[in-house]
Amino acid sequence: MVKTKITPLFDNVLIKPLEAEVKTSSGIILPDSAKEKPQMGEVVEVGPGKTDEGKLVPVSVKKGQKVMYKKWGGNEIKINGQELTLVEEKDILAIIE
Amino acid sequence: MVKTKITPLFDNVLIKPLEAEVKTSSGIILPDSAKEKPQMGEVVEVGPGKTDEGKLVPVSVKKGQKVMYKKWGGNEIKINGQELTLVEEKDILAIIE
Amino acid sequence: MVKTKITPLFDNVLIKPLEAEVKTSSGIILPDSAKEKPQMGEVVEVGPGKTDEGKLVPVSVKKGQKVMYKKWGGNEIKINGQELTLVEEKDILAIIE
Amino acid sequence: MVKTKITPLFDNVLIKPLEAEVKTSSGIILPDSAKEKPQMGEVVEVGPGKTDEGKLVPVSVKKGQKVMYKKWGGNEIKINGQELTLVEEKDILAIIE
Amino acid sequence: MVKTKITPLFDNVLIKPLEAEVKTSSGIILPDSAKEKPQMGEVVEVGPGKTDEGKLVPVSVKKGQKVMYKKWGGNEIKINGQELTLVEEKDILAIIE
Amino acid sequence: MVKTKITPLFDNVLIKPLEAEVKTSSGIILPDSAKEKPQMGEVVEVGPGKTDEGKLVPVSVKKGQKVMYKKWGGNEIKINGQELTLVEEKDILAIIE
Amino acid sequence: MVKTKITPLFDNVLIKPLEAEVKTSSGIILPDSAKEKPQMGEVVEVGPGKTDEGKLVPVSVKKGQKVMYKKWGGNEIKINGQELTLVEEKDILAIIE
Repeated sequence: MVKTKITPLFDNVLIKPLEAEVKTSSGIILPDSAKEKPQMGEVVEVGPGKTDEGKLVPVSVKKGQKVMYKKWGGNEIKINGQELTLVEEKDILAIIE
Repeated sequence: MVKTKITPLFDNVLIKPLEAEVKTSSGIILPDSAKEKPQMGEVVEVGPGKTDEGKLVPVSVKKGQKVMYKKWGGNEIKINGQELTLVEEKDILAIIE
Repeated sequence: MVKTKITPLFDNVLIKPLEAEVKTSSGIILPDSAKEKPQMGEVVEVGPGKTDEGKLVPVSVKKGQKVMYKKWGGNEIKINGQELTLVEEKDILAIIE
Repeated sequence: MVKTKITPLFDNVLIKPLEAEVKTSSGIILPDSAKEKPQMGEVVEVGPGKTDEGKLVPVSVKKGQKVMYKKWGGNEIKINGQELTLVEEKDILAIIE
Repeated sequence: MVKTKITPLFDNVLIKPLEAEVKTSSGIILPDSAKEKPQMGEVVEVGPGKTDEGKLVPVSVKKGQKVMYKKWGGNEIKINGQELTLVEEKDILAIIE
Repeated sequence: MVKTKITPLFDNVLIKPLEAEVKTSSGIILPDSAKEKPQMGEVVEVGPGKTDEGKLVPVSVKKGQKVMYKKWGGNEIKINGQELTLVEEKDILAIIE
Repeated sequence: MVKTKITPLFDNVLIKPLEAEVKTSSGIILPDSAKEKPQMGEVVEVGPGKTDEGKLVPVSVKKGQKVMYKKWGGNEIKINGQELTLVEEKDILAIIE
C-alpha cells in the first residue's frame, strides 16, 4: 500500500491524538465525556505558517512535540489506518514535556 | 456539446471531490455520515488570489493537487455532468501526496 | 414606456439570473430546490467599486460576462418586466465561459 | 404650522419611499409582501459623511436622486404628515434613472 | 435636595426624551408601539468623544439640540425626577430643527 | 482578619455598587427589576489601562468617583464581606457628581 | 512517576484554582452555583505572550501570583493528580494580594 503524506497549509497542524492509557502513565487524566476539555496529542506535520501583513509567521510547535489542544476546533481524518486531526495553531494551548 | 469553463474569482478554488473508492485505495477512509469532517478532492481551477491592502496574495494550491478541504464551506455545482465545488482558499486544510 | 436605468453603487453588481433551460444547454444543471447552491447569471451593470483606505478598488467582473454567484446574498428586483438581482462583488464566485 | 427640518448625521440619508403606483409607471414592480426585497425611494437629505481614519468620506448619493435601498435597514419616521426613513449609506444599493 | 450632575464618558450623550405632545406640535408623530422606530429627544450633556488611534474625536451633537435617536440603543435612567437616557453617538441619526 | 487587596488588570475597574437608599437621596431612582438598566456605584480600584498599538491608554475614571455602569457587563465578587464588581472601562457610561 | 511539565503557548496562563476554604480565610466568598462569576486561582505557568503586529506582548501576570479569572473562559485539565486550567490572559481580571 502506498503511504499517503499530508502537508498542512497555512498555520494548520496535523496531530495524532494520544490514547487515554498513554495519558495516564504520564499523569494526565481527562474524562472522556468532556467534549470541550483540551486533548493531548503528538504533532505529526506542521504548516508553513500564516501570512500577516505580507510576512510569514511560522508555527510555534514542532514535529514530535506533545501538545494540549482544543479537540472541538480540529478536523478529524483517518489516514493509513490512523486517526489524525488537523488543528489551527491558535487551538493549541500548551506544550507538554 | 460545448464545454463550459469556470474561472474562479478572488481566492476561490474549483475542486472535484474524490470518491470514497479512490480514498480507500490511498489509505484514507472518511465516514460518509460525517458532514463536518474534511473532504478529499482534486484542484481543477484556481482563482487569481485575494487583494490585501493593495497587494494580490496568490492562492497556495495548484491545479492537479489533491487537497483536504472543509466540505461545508464549499458551493456545489454540476457542470458538464461533473459534480464540482467552489471552495475559499482558507477552507483548504492540507495538500495530499 | 420609459426605460428605467439602474446604476449600482459601491461594489454592487446587477445580474440577470439565467434560466434552467439556458444552463442545461451549456452543461450546467442546478437542482432548483437547492437554495444555498450558487446560481448562474449575466452581468447587466457594475458599480464603480469599493473604497478601501482612500483607494477605489474596481469590480472584478464586466458587463456581459456570465457568472456564478451566491443566490441568497442578492437583493431581487423586478424592472421593465425583468427579474434582476443586485449582488455584492464578494458573492460572485466565478466567471463562466 | 412650523416645518420641521431633519439634518442626517454621519452617512445617514433621509429617504422618501416611493409608492407602488409610481414604481409601476417607471416599470418597477416590487411584491409588497417581500420584506427583505429592496425598496425604491427619493433622497430628501444627505448627511455629511462618515469619518474614516481622520478623513471625511462624503455620501455617494445626492438630494433628489431616486435610489434602491434595503428597506429593513432603515429607521422609519413620520414628519409633517410624510412617512420618511433614515438609511445608512451602505444600505443604498443603486441609483435609478 | 442636592441636584445630581451626570457627565457622560467617551462618546455617550445624555438625552431627555421628548413627549408625544411636543412631537405632535412640531409635526412629528411616532407610533408608541413601535419599539424599533427612532425617538426624538433633547441633548442634555455630551461626552468628550471617542479616542481613535490616539486622537480624540469630539461628538457631533451639542447641548440643547433636538435629535432623532435609536431608542433601543440607549440606557435609561431616572434622575432628579426626570427620565433620561444615555445614548452612544452612533445611535443618533439626525438633528431636528 | 487579613484585608485582601484587588488590583484590576488592563482597563478593568473595581466598583462598589451603591444601595437603593443612597441613590434615592441623591435623586436617582432605578427600578430594581430592570436588569439591563445602568447601575450606580463608587470606583474602588482602577486598572493601569489597555495597550493599544503599543501605547498604554489610561482609564478615564478615578478612585472615589461615582459612576453609572452597565450592570450586566460586570463580574461580581464578594470580598471582606463587601459585594464588588469588576467592570471593563467601556461599560462605564458617565460620572455622577 | 515522571512529572509532567506544561508550557503554555501564546498568552495562555496555567492556573491552579483555589479551594473554597482558602478563599474564605482570605475574606473572599464566591457562591459556588454562580457559573459566570470570576474564580480565584494561583498562576502556575505563563506563556511567552501574544504577537501583535510583529511584536511580542508579554503576559501581565507572573508565576505565583493569585488572580481572579473568568472560569468559563478556561480549559480544564487534570495533571499529576491536580486540577488545573489554561486561561487566556484577557480572561484574567485582577491580581489579589
